[in-house]
Amino acid sequence: MLETLKKRVYEANLDLVKQNLVIYTWGNVSAYDPNSGYVVIKPSGVAYETMQVEDMVVVDLEGNVIEGDLKPSSDTMTHLEIYKHFKGVKAVVHTHSKWATIFAQSGQVIPPFGTTHADYFNRAVPLTRPMQADEIKNDYEKNTGLIIIETFKEQAIDPRHCPGVLIHEHGPFTWGKDPKEAVHNAVVLETIAEMAYRTMMLKGNNAAMERNLLEKHFKRKHGKNRYYGQD
Amino acid sequence: MLETLKKRVYEANLDLVKQNLVIYTWGNVSAYDPNSGYVVIKPSGVAYETMQVEDMVVVDLEGNVIEGDLKPSSDTMTHLEIYKHFKGVKAVVHTHSKWATIFAQSGQVIPPFGTTHADYFNRAVPLTRPMQADEIKNDYEKNTGLIIIETFKEQAIDPRHCPGVLIHEHGPFTWGKDPKEAVHNAVVLETIAEMAYRTMMLKGNNAAMERNLLEKHFKRKHGKNRYYGQD
Amino acid sequence: MLETLKKRVYEANLDLVKQNLVIYTWGNVSAYDPNSGYVVIKPSGVAYETMQVEDMVVVDLEGNVIEGDLKPSSDTMTHLEIYKHFKGVKAVVHTHSKWATIFAQSGQVIPPFGTTHADYFNRAVPLTRPMQADEIKNDYEKNTGLIIIETFKEQAIDPRHCPGVLIHEHGPFTWGKDPKEAVHNAVVLETIAEMAYRTMMLKGNNAAMERNLLEKHFKRKHGKNRYYGQD
Amino acid sequence: MLETLKKRVYEANLDLVKQNLVIYTWGNVSAYDPNSGYVVIKPSGVAYETMQVEDMVVVDLEGNVIEGDLKPSSDTMTHLEIYKHFKGVKAVVHTHSKWATIFAQSGQVIPPFGTTHADYFNRAVPLTRPMQADEIKNDYEKNTGLIIIETFKEQAIDPRHCPGVLIHEHGPFTWGKDPKEAVHNAVVLETIAEMAYRTMMLKGNNAAMERNLLEKHFKRKHGKNRYYGQD
Repeated sequence: MLETLKKRVYEANLDLVKQNLVIYTWGNVSAYDPNSGYVVIKPSGVAYETMQVEDMVVVDLEGNVIEGDLKPSSDTMTHLEIYKHFKGVKAVVHTHSKWATIFAQSGQVIPPFGTTHADYFNRAVPLTRPMQADEIKNDYEKNTGLIIIETFKEQAIDPRHCPGVLIHEHGPFTWGKDPKEAVHNAVVLETIAEMAYRTMMLKGNNAAMERNLLEKHFKRKHGKNRYYGQD
Repeated sequence: MLETLKKRVYEANLDLVKQNLVIYTWGNVSAYDPNSGYVVIKPSGVAYETMQVEDMVVVDLEGNVIEGDLKPSSDTMTHLEIYKHFKGVKAVVHTHSKWATIFAQSGQVIPPFGTTHADYFNRAVPLTRPMQADEIKNDYEKNTGLIIIETFKEQAIDPRHCPGVLIHEHGPFTWGKDPKEAVHNAVVLETIAEMAYRTMMLKGNNAAMERNLLEKHFKRKHGKNRYYGQD
Repeated sequence: MLETLKKRVYEANLDLVKQNLVIYTWGNVSAYDPNSGYVVIKPSGVAYETMQVEDMVVVDLEGNVIEGDLKPSSDTMTHLEIYKHFKGVKAVVHTHSKWATIFAQSGQVIPPFGTTHADYFNRAVPLTRPMQADEIKNDYEKNTGLIIIETFKEQAIDPRHCPGVLIHEHGPFTWGKDPKEAVHNAVVLETIAEMAYRTMMLKGNNAAMERNLLEKHFKRKHGKNRYYGQD
Repeated sequence: MLETLKKRVYEANLDLVKQNLVIYTWGNVSAYDPNSGYVVIKPSGVAYETMQVEDMVVVDLEGNVIEGDLKPSSDTMTHLEIYKHFKGVKAVVHTHSKWATIFAQSGQVIPPFGTTHADYFNRAVPLTRPMQADEIKNDYEKNTGLIIIETFKEQAIDPRHCPGVLIHEHGPFTWGKDPKEAVHNAVVLETIAEMAYRTMMLKGNNAAMERNLLEKHFKRKHGKNRYYGQD
């Protein structure tokens, strides 16, 4: 079932290691198949060196295992909430990549400081609110997903223009139209997080970049009048 | 004698180099064999490139060489105190890995700032007190071990929930149930130290993470109700 | 047409990746051919892994495509302004390399702090002024080039003694007598930017180095009395 | 002439690149042969990729070329002063390695903060005073050497217990009993510089480590009662 998608999810998980976003078992990629309504996700706690394509787990949007001998990622319920609420998202990546995690641990958004950020995100990378004791105790992973949705809804953020979020005192999630793009966005997020950190150290403040320049660069690459890249 | 364990200790020492925790001869791994009561440890000051499995030294818990042509690591007596006092510890790693060492040099614990830390340590990574002149002068390495024990005892820290410590103005020790896990914990310690440093720079303070979230993540991976990973 | 130059431009683009100055499609190299008056430049948004020598695009100094099936880099008009105004420049490099970009994002020049800087730049690496809304809206890339020219003209900077510039809230451009030298200068710029950042953190101020020492080192490598290197 | 030494000097120069201490032509290694009184040194400005063993230049202690088709390193006269004044030094390394250079650019010594430092240097890594205009103008490289000697003499530093120095607004020199040890000390200097930088950021001050601990570690590895390593 969904063999092609399993292969893509498998390879995207390995890419996280190659891109230095993940060590050991500290990350997971999933993908959503609109036809079946199922999600393919990495198994929980399996070493990347021995993991096989066929170890990928198929679950439905409620988290029931449809196919697979292993337990799905412990973060599965967070992934599923993203698929349920963000239209067009077909792949999700979660890592503890260093630079993005530092902002998450600091309880700070990543402000847009330059055109590298603006080429991918048309605003600050948002941060979820701290979770309450009961949200942590019961259905922790599902609540993590719900709080991502809450963050985007309350701040009227369009997930297509902001393909990632920081979970408070935890780490980043990114997404895209396929596993490759979701991993690409995870790499970009890590890169802009590193540059943002150092920019804040150098500037001594976190004043965001000029809005016109931010929108210029975002629209140069995205939307109907984009002219970056080939047609 | 203890050929299998020698091979594991040898390989774990080389892993320290591969994981960028050690350059030259700046680290050592040992393992404890409960049956014989002996410890296998790296020889002192031998280059990793030329070191052989059979160069590993076997000592008893008082530091007497039982087998081996070379002198054991100069830090042997520290390792032995850990085996004598921490039940269940069967392997010990010592490095001067950069980020953990920076906290040791700064005289600061590594506060828990996020779930990456909480997945392995259920509290701050502790720091030993400064050593006194006489503790340095005589039996320096043994005293280093005794002060680790003192630190855990006085602060009522369970070494199973806190698999590492920082030696004041020196560097880290980590441990585990086998050499592989002790090295794994050394890598984790280095990673959380790096993220903690930058979190402190970004936050401007060292307030620890929310306690409920810390315990949730620690228990998700450890203890009887853990659900991370496969059964 | 210009097959040798295309090969050099192609290889210089790949060098940006090897030198860790560029990920994905985030950079571009061009070269100017004085005989034809044409410029060879990387195509826009083409992945480095699949890009071929024959994908390089030939344009004239007004940006008209003379040869090539692909669209030229979206930054082409910036490159062209540099060729039109800076005598002797025959290759231009643009990247979002991390350390140089951090200064650009911070709105700060890179002060000369040591002889490594002085070996290549005889002054601070300059920064362009913020662009105005109308300069961003229309002919953005051409205006980026014009503002580089304006910066050098107003501050009486000789581009032969200062082979690079930072674009405000964007990133660096460097140049040279051929693609290899322009890439070399991009690597140097990145290196001195990293060292300058940390020097500022350590010193707590941005006071430049002693002027006599700066000029000594610059002249040791450049100009008629240079004695560094072989004749 | 001195073919074995040429090979060692050649290989030590390449090691600087492998150890990430040098890019392009930014470093040089020399060695002194007590029998002939000659010094073998890297040629000036020759790319490491194409450099051959036979390109090494033989000079006497006054800098006269005894053998070799190429010009010796432009820093030759600095190396020679070190050989003339520091007994027992038989190899010298100069780099612009990032972390050591940052301290040189900041005009700060590298304080001893931990046992890693103490294993090699029994005090702070010293810094030369700023050079005067006339010292820069004439015999610049020889004066750089003389100021190193002056620094050690005035502060009564024993070069055997402190195998390196920082040149103000320039970079480090290290030394040893052979090229391999001099490169080893250059790697160590870079490592302790990086850790010192971050320790200062974390501590918020530059108070040195406890003196007893410093001496204990230095003497554990050096001097007549050393017990680190094999006999």
